Amino acid sequence: MRILGIDPGISRIGYGCIETEGGPTAISWGVLRMEGIPGHEQVRRLRMNIEKLLRELCPARAGLEKLYFSRNQKTALRVAEARGIILATLLEARIEVIELEPSAIKIAVTSYGRADKTAVAKMVTALLGIHIAKREDDASDALAAAIAASSRLPAVGSGY
Amino acid sequence: MRILGIDPGISRIGYGCIETEGGPTAISWGVLRMEGIPGHEQVRRLRMNIEKLLRELCPARAGLEKLYFSRNQKTALRVAEARGIILATLLEARIEVIELEPSAIKIAVTSYGRADKTAVAKMVTALLGIHIAKREDDASDALAAAIAASSRLPAVGSGY
Repeated sequence: MRILGIDPGISRIGYGCIETEGGPTAISWGVLRMEGIPGHEQVRRLRMNIEKLLRELCPARAGLEKLYFSRNQKTALRVAEARGIILATLLEARIEVIELEPSAIKIAVTSYGRADKTAVAKMVTALLGIHIAKREDDASDALAAAIAASSRLPAVGSGY
Repeated sequence: MRILGIDPGISRIGYGCIETEGGPTAISWGVLRMEGIPGHEQVRRLRMNIEKLLRELCPARAGLEKLYFSRNQKTALRVAEARGIILATLLEARIEVIELEPSAIKIAVTSYGRADKTAVAKMVTALLGIHIAKREDDASDALAAAIAASSRLPAVGSGY
């Protein structure tokens, strides 16, 4: 099964796609960058970029990270708006969306729910046998979400 | 100019459409209700309901209420996700979106930024010469957003 993991953000959105058939293999990963683009244009680009990814990668399932509770509520609300747009775009494309707590993603790849970003990246690259460039490091969280989603069925009534 | 106001929410979304030509006239108002619908299906319905509204009402501009900061961050994040979906749907339909602080909407209809819901409803119904049923009271906030948007041009760099 082809699974797309997504790490939501405002102007940097990590993505990573794996194929689970015959053990997980990385198909594609990177960061959608929309820094410096004015607000409404950024929203339009976000939709277009996600739609383009889906056309290119044709995932059957997506692993979408849930948001942390944040001290900076203004930022949290903006990330939540972007996450809503991503979720709606995935669902419209009839992709099965598994929503995952950050801790569940960490446990899936490192067996430890409080692992830091470096530990997650280290395990993801080891598991998939790939190298992730420094400027694409948000992609490792997305690949971790894809790996976590590979063993998960959605809980009834969970999610949005 | 035809203007659609929207009061974002998770399972109840108020809408109200006015025509400004020759003084504001109410065209249509109500509440999109999605209570009791499971999470992902609710996201799909939200998109479809907003798209249907836009087809029916053909607004040139929309007034979309910004979110309050909330003590309940979990609820706030869910409303923000829904708001992001609404915003993206409006922008895709090439509608000019004016994002408005709740206080700016209140000032526009009551001249007082801390007016309560009842005061807003009273002024909206008086200004437009309409009656709003109790079960559609979220529509009065949406009509107030439409009225506020009628005199506003977006501030550069504002919004999302």
